[in-house]
Amino acid sequence: MDERLERNKRFVAEFYDIIINQKDYERAKPYMGPRYRQHNPLVKDYPDGLRDFIEFLKTNAPQARSKIIRSFAEGDYVILHVHSWRRPDTRGRAIIEIFRLNEDGLIDEHWDVIQEIPETSANPNGMF
Amino acid sequence: MDERLERNKRFVAEFYDIIINQKDYERAKPYMGPRYRQHNPLVKDYPDGLRDFIEFLKTNAPQARSKIIRSFAEGDYVILHVHSWRRPDTRGRAIIEIFRLNEDGLIDEHWDVIQEIPETSANPNGMF
Repeated sequence: MDERLERNKRFVAEFYDIIINQKDYERAKPYMGPRYRQHNPLVKDYPDGLRDFIEFLKTNAPQARSKIIRSFAEGDYVILHVHSWRRPDTRGRAIIEIFRLNEDGLIDEHWDVIQEIPETSANPNGMF
Repeated sequence: MDERLERNKRFVAEFYDIIINQKDYERAKPYMGPRYRQHNPLVKDYPDGLRDFIEFLKTNAPQARSKIIRSFAEGDYVILHVHSWRRPDTRGRAIIEIFRLNEDGLIDEHWDVIQEIPETSANPNGMF
């Protein structure tokens, strides 16, 4: 695997941990490009939108945790397959995140898809 | 980009179109490995599980359509970011699909995350 792709995966995984688990906007800020275009319909554009989201988490879901199960990279994109909990002792949610990095290697655009893990399944494999 | 990765992306995109848009199990079958391990909680394991899912679509959502917006590949994995409609004239759903190919280049495992596109958004960018 290309070293730049491995670097991008590590960089995005660090950023993700800082946002979701550490909930530390000041540490997350240097990872972002100035535009940080947002596609999650609950979050505003620009780095400031992410600051508001982290404040939301700290107030409404201080125990929120996420675990990256697998990650992929191609070109300027990094994809994370994530198990996420807003509260402990819940089944949690399956999330796939897509991040695009800009020409400076900073995170500049974000998409995600989020699904609650259902209680029952037609197969024995789990969502991961 | 590695030729094998481009081949894998084309192969998975063809398979996906055959399943969701053409809804043709007999044409989809040669794309799958014998195990076809399923992680979508509504679908059973093995190629037979996908047959049942296609029958479900033909009966309950005959107008279901999906459009691949972007795709990525790394190693044995292909990732599709998809706009999916069960019925026309709806906002539809955002889906990210992950497929793993086996040593013969056949599709052998599948994960997805599915989210209804909400009516309103905190940003003007849409979910894609």
